[in-house]
Amino acid sequence: MEKMTTNKKRLLIVGGVAGGASCAARSRRLSETAEIIIFERGQFVSFANCGLPYYVGDVITDEQKLVVANADLFKQRFNIDVRLENEVLEIDREKAVITVKNRKTGEIYPENYDALVLAPGAASIRPPLPGIDLPGIFAVRTIPDSRRIREWISTREVKRAVVVGGGFIGLEMTENLVHRGISVTLLQNQTQVMAPLDPEMATPIHDLLVSHGVTLGLGDGVVGFEANADGSINVITQSGATHATDLVILAIGVRPETTLAKAAGLEIGERGGIRVNAQMQTSDEKIWAVGDVVEVQDFVTKEWTFIPLAGPANRQGRIAAEAIFGRNTQFRGVQGTSVCGIFGLTIATTGANEKTLKRLGWNYDKVYLHPGHHVGYYPNAKPINMKLLFSPGDGRVLGAQAVGEAGVEKRIDVIAMAIQLGATVYDLEEAELCYAPQFGAAKDPVNIAGMIAAKDLREDAPLVHWEDLPKLDGMLLDVREAYEFAAGHVETAVNIPLSELRQRMVELPTDQDIWVYCQVGQRGYYATRALRLNNFRAANLSGGFKTYQAGKFKLNQYLV
Amino acid sequence: MEKMTTNKKRLLIVGGVAGGASCAARSRRLSETAEIIIFERGQFVSFANCGLPYYVGDVITDEQKLVVANADLFKQRFNIDVRLENEVLEIDREKAVITVKNRKTGEIYPENYDALVLAPGAASIRPPLPGIDLPGIFAVRTIPDSRRIREWISTREVKRAVVVGGGFIGLEMTENLVHRGISVTLLQNQTQVMAPLDPEMATPIHDLLVSHGVTLGLGDGVVGFEANADGSINVITQSGATHATDLVILAIGVRPETTLAKAAGLEIGERGGIRVNAQMQTSDEKIWAVGDVVEVQDFVTKEWTFIPLAGPANRQGRIAAEAIFGRNTQFRGVQGTSVCGIFGLTIATTGANEKTLKRLGWNYDKVYLHPGHHVGYYPNAKPINMKLLFSPGDGRVLGAQAVGEAGVEKRIDVIAMAIQLGATVYDLEEAELCYAPQFGAAKDPVNIAGMIAAKDLREDAPLVHWEDLPKLDGMLLDVREAYEFAAGHVETAVNIPLSELRQRMVELPTDQDIWVYCQVGQRGYYATRALRLNNFRAANLSGGFKTYQAGKFKLNQYLV
Repeated sequence: MEKMTTNKKRLLIVGGVAGGASCAARSRRLSETAEIIIFERGQFVSFANCGLPYYVGDVITDEQKLVVANADLFKQRFNIDVRLENEVLEIDREKAVITVKNRKTGEIYPENYDALVLAPGAASIRPPLPGIDLPGIFAVRTIPDSRRIREWISTREVKRAVVVGGGFIGLEMTENLVHRGISVTLLQNQTQVMAPLDPEMATPIHDLLVSHGVTLGLGDGVVGFEANADGSINVITQSGATHATDLVILAIGVRPETTLAKAAGLEIGERGGIRVNAQMQTSDEKIWAVGDVVEVQDFVTKEWTFIPLAGPANRQGRIAAEAIFGRNTQFRGVQGTSVCGIFGLTIATTGANEKTLKRLGWNYDKVYLHPGHHVGYYPNAKPINMKLLFSPGDGRVLGAQAVGEAGVEKRIDVIAMAIQLGATVYDLEEAELCYAPQFGAAKDPVNIAGMIAAKDLREDAPLVHWEDLPKLDGMLLDVREAYEFAAGHVETAVNIPLSELRQRMVELPTDQDIWVYCQVGQRGYYATRALRLNNFRAANLSGGFKTYQAGKFKLNQYLV
Repeated sequence: MEKMTTNKKRLLIVGGVAGGASCAARSRRLSETAEIIIFERGQFVSFANCGLPYYVGDVITDEQKLVVANADLFKQRFNIDVRLENEVLEIDREKAVITVKNRKTGEIYPENYDALVLAPGAASIRPPLPGIDLPGIFAVRTIPDSRRIREWISTREVKRAVVVGGGFIGLEMTENLVHRGISVTLLQNQTQVMAPLDPEMATPIHDLLVSHGVTLGLGDGVVGFEANADGSINVITQSGATHATDLVILAIGVRPETTLAKAAGLEIGERGGIRVNAQMQTSDEKIWAVGDVVEVQDFVTKEWTFIPLAGPANRQGRIAAEAIFGRNTQFRGVQGTSVCGIFGLTIATTGANEKTLKRLGWNYDKVYLHPGHHVGYYPNAKPINMKLLFSPGDGRVLGAQAVGEAGVEKRIDVIAMAIQLGATVYDLEEAELCYAPQFGAAKDPVNIAGMIAAKDLREDAPLVHWEDLPKLDGMLLDVREAYEFAAGHVETAVNIPLSELRQRMVELPTDQDIWVYCQVGQRGYYATRALRLNNFRAANLSGGFKTYQAGKFKLNQYLV
């Protein structure tokens, strides 16, 4: 069973944050006799880098809280030797020896290994732009990074900041700087924030940022930085704009720290990360790699991808440990399940998005919906904007996105579990989930997403989508009440409220397509069913007028 | 495909709340030509009875909000004829005719059917105790019930209430009455509240009730009621206690309204509900039954059971409609997924509990855990008390229970989805769920539950349980720090803190079982691994001292 446990194996681990620390701790639980050494270039092991924006924002005030486990704890609890500020310079695969530099003393020394785990993580991308090294331009990757930003903010009395990049870290930093009373400009060279979302799902976030006083510049990349005489920085963009600021946060992503692996000749994948097998083993059978440095297979699309997330990094660390100590645990790939909170809005996703499915040329369908996070009759129900992607053949769930104020990541977690287990939209339809007035509904948003998709697949109520409207050769029918129609509608639409539809069907064409919509899709569905059962060629606009607006009117609202 | 849709079928539905209303609406979406009539004995269709306690508590202030859809809406939107205050007296199965009484006019009339759906629901249990019909004793099942309670509270200036029964409704009514400033006594003849939980999981709820000023009497059934001269009521219990009160809420459960079905000779199941097949069809092929009146099969145990929940009732209504209109949708059974909020605590469960598995003699194992609802380094992490039940053979998840202040029903929803899809604890271990500091952890509580269970099954760290402690023939080892041990420990335990364990293993017996515990189970797990790898016969006490305390010291704390 535990065949390696009595060997005095020598396990060296390069990097001691999420993946490396997990690997070390798990290894000790598989062998009491192995010698386990973590080499960490930085000053901390096992720290919570997901918490750094909140430390900058003074939401987390005690820096010590970010340290999950320190070197002493590793020694006492796990008999693991953690060597901080020790950088691994080289791997001699032939001899199974690494060369280490103690950055405190300057000493350079060798260490031999039976097994080597590479967990150096990823580094913030710092493009070689003019002025990129000016003081006041920071990344947010380590505790010292955050310390420096905190210090810069207080000593310089920072009033203005430019955040470059609108991903997780960019958004979280934006919120935290606003929280500290700083006026923030968010620049994003893509035309939307939060790349894991499809663009029409990101539009509420754009509105929210602006409503919190953030100056939002989409589609405008940074081309350089200039120092001003007063110590402030000018951020210059492609469009020619200049943003004078006291602080710049670079949050344009990370790249895997593959220097060591490349120099050692380990196989690197097409996406630039270390290539590993399902046991996290590299092309060298004595070397494993885990965390942000590796490429992983997407669970849904099977593509090689690069998704730096803490959960998978921890899992990979444990799997590598199990492989090293003779067990055969397999990594199942990543779904990209993730969540981000900003100004009271929760953004969560799992699985593939539409952009990816389009790029891959997959056959897919989708539904939009806007259910309340709990029943409407209980106070303070908040809508969730949801999108579900699925396979039209078998109904397999491919991905989901949700944005709203409450109960958002709960629905994504349920769908994430479903995707992992190969579920179909019919399974979502039948899911039995918690319901009490404060928590959900007899038909939970997950059920509703499944039901709409299933009705589409069964052709009970075929769906059409907001972006297809220009292709409509037929009638567009708005079944909302007259007062709703008057407050705003699709230009070409005719209004017959659902309650009058049965009496007024004579007004409708029998030889044309009729696309029906309402506010969010439910009345449109009722109307579509009534029309189809009366032999009209009806389809329902998924997500109704609300999704149409998010796509049509808001996609390019904050483009520079 | 939609073979019945052009027939002018006559569909009669008895009862118009959750199941009946869903069945009617779905039927219309499958046929525009069918004649659909709902006969509802009460004054409302499609109302939210899950909201009634909150209406009594003034959390929901507008009664109209409880009416999901009224008779006019059914007519306008769905062309469905709703006959309120029309009671179905009899079914003539031979002739396919029902006899109806219009309670407003007294008129009695027949209606013939092609298909009949019974959705009369369940009635509150009202045991034939002395004084049960005294004014001031109420059930909470309908809008008029809640109205009468509200009126009673305000006109009588109610200061004291006795709630009889500690299930969902009993707890929700307790909270809502306290919310209105009323002093509440909660009497429960069982030894715990919330029967879906196992007893040791219910103990925090007992403490919480008492901390909110509720007088809690467990294990003390009511034997009768007496009127006092001042209009108050004495509630008399088995133990001989007398509780003087201004208001009594009976919340001791419901029984299926099978009078009509029994008189018509339809098959009744062993649990007293109408027996139906997976298409919700009764023993008469023209009659279907849905909602609280039917017995359903438990998804996990396959037992026939009686679980009155709104979600399944709605689903059953739709399935019956599909069957009637020629489709073959199957009901998958119920998992009993449910949630209840009380004084800021969330209680959620899914699948089988230990009581049931014991009763059935199933082979099962369990884990306890107490993870935070999000990472500890982000402010306001709240612990969740969780219990996971699983099959020792294949690791199949059988059920889960969770109690805590936040993020509770999210974890149960994920596990509910997993159970439906036949997942194992290994799947929970690998689940990729949302993580950002405010929302969860790199190892989500669901992952941790799966990991602990998997380690038990792989015999990496076998578990023992609090109730097995008297059976221990060996050493009980507390690996917490000395100050924790000093603050309270299991009487027979020896203390060696985890950090000293490797140095002090010589003190431990090699020829005896060593049961290890810490506060919640994690350090106990580390210690267990270290000991086992050093050839000690170690096992870990699941849930640690916290679960031990909940079981050992608190189970009988509020017994009368």
